[in-house]
Amino acid sequence: MKAEVEARRASQADDRARRRTIYEGKAKILYEGPEPGTLIQHFKDDTTAFDAEKRAVLEGKGVINSRISEFVMRRLNAVGVQNHFIERLSPTEQLIREVEIIPLEVVCRNIAAGSLSQRFGLPEGQPLPRALIEFYLKDDRLHDPMVAEEHIAAFDWASPQEIADIRAVTLKVNDELRGVFGAVGITLVDFKLEFGRVREGDVSRIILADEISPDSCRLWDSASRKKLDKDRFRRDLGDVVESYTEVARRLGVM
Amino acid sequence: MKAEVEARRASQADDRARRRTIYEGKAKILYEGPEPGTLIQHFKDDTTAFDAEKRAVLEGKGVINSRISEFVMRRLNAVGVQNHFIERLSPTEQLIREVEIIPLEVVCRNIAAGSLSQRFGLPEGQPLPRALIEFYLKDDRLHDPMVAEEHIAAFDWASPQEIADIRAVTLKVNDELRGVFGAVGITLVDFKLEFGRVREGDVSRIILADEISPDSCRLWDSASRKKLDKDRFRRDLGDVVESYTEVARRLGVM
Repeated sequence: MKAEVEARRASQADDRARRRTIYEGKAKILYEGPEPGTLIQHFKDDTTAFDAEKRAVLEGKGVINSRISEFVMRRLNAVGVQNHFIERLSPTEQLIREVEIIPLEVVCRNIAAGSLSQRFGLPEGQPLPRALIEFYLKDDRLHDPMVAEEHIAAFDWASPQEIADIRAVTLKVNDELRGVFGAVGITLVDFKLEFGRVREGDVSRIILADEISPDSCRLWDSASRKKLDKDRFRRDLGDVVESYTEVARRLGVM
Repeated sequence: MKAEVEARRASQADDRARRRTIYEGKAKILYEGPEPGTLIQHFKDDTTAFDAEKRAVLEGKGVINSRISEFVMRRLNAVGVQNHFIERLSPTEQLIREVEIIPLEVVCRNIAAGSLSQRFGLPEGQPLPRALIEFYLKDDRLHDPMVAEEHIAAFDWASPQEIADIRAVTLKVNDELRGVFGAVGITLVDFKLEFGRVREGDVSRIILADEISPDSCRLWDSASRKKLDKDRFRRDLGDVVESYTEVARRLGVM
């Protein structure tokens, strides 16, 4: 049995080696997919923070994030939020739809934390008056600066209609995920989404892409307020993989 | 004649000393006005940059900025941009309408410079695709962070209607000032406005407040691109008061 698993892994590694790498990011690799319009998204164990100044390899993180993200994307699809997930190929690989990525990180916040707390002097943990959506330009060289819709429109990073669609989808994702996590005793503090364009004939529309995992969300145990997300890595709190596993376990995916 | 001038100055200083200070900023003092709903705005020679880490007293700056700002505010009033200027009281003092200041700095940019250049890696001097309006929270303690309309709405710094009005007025000011400065060989690179609320019965509306001067605008000689604004102080380029005087001279106000 173990030999079989190992043989399969080796064969997958061979497949990967033969596949063309389309993009390698800090925590994921995108490979050419088996059919046009598809890609394979591989979740790495690598983690980085602070513009990649802090780095580590967290064994098992790729598997956990792939599972959590799959669960969330399937759930979102079921409530009408179209996204790039097609199917699981291996514990760390997903078949996804190829999109033209929009160069924005879309952050939705329910509770003050992280850069918002710093920027406005708000104590971490203070509930916000309403869900707040922020846009950041995806550009490591510029340290992902925050941008207003004014910049997005002037520099043509996305159209006003796309931004309106992104806002609406982000609020829907927030409602759904607050429910999903809330039901298992986890508070959704904030999260980051990325979107991509898909073209169908002359029509282009946006769908949700990237991943949704403890790397891209702030998740606190609702009772103890223990952090179960990447802040454990950023702030050297320890138990990073254990906390990610706890999230997966509560969602029933591990 | 000189004695008369000195006597008048001494008497004004006496008046000021008796007046209640409502607010003292880095470059201006607001005193209680002669009638309810009015204030006296005094232009100081003090100048600061980089969150007041850099300071100097530039003799004559207060007089020049008061004159330039008066000229611009009168001109804007003539084209329908309501603002707080009522009349000149002395070379450094203006009678103004009291407003409830909106805690936002409204920046309008035609050409990349300053923090926009840094934030997006745009070469200084690169024309922007269109006039760009940015909002910054007026809060020295937080270093005046840039904000999106989303933050303004969520934290109730201004209403969506006020922001729409501010945008429209800012674009009108931009059109007018590009003309005013362009006619005397000066390129309006960018400028900062502040707005205030005035209440008339149950109705509240916004009017332009503060000042418009080489302290709050980037102004370049159109031919030589020589900077004629506060960047001369920020970047230690010398000739600060001389350059401000050149702007006043070209506008015909000194």
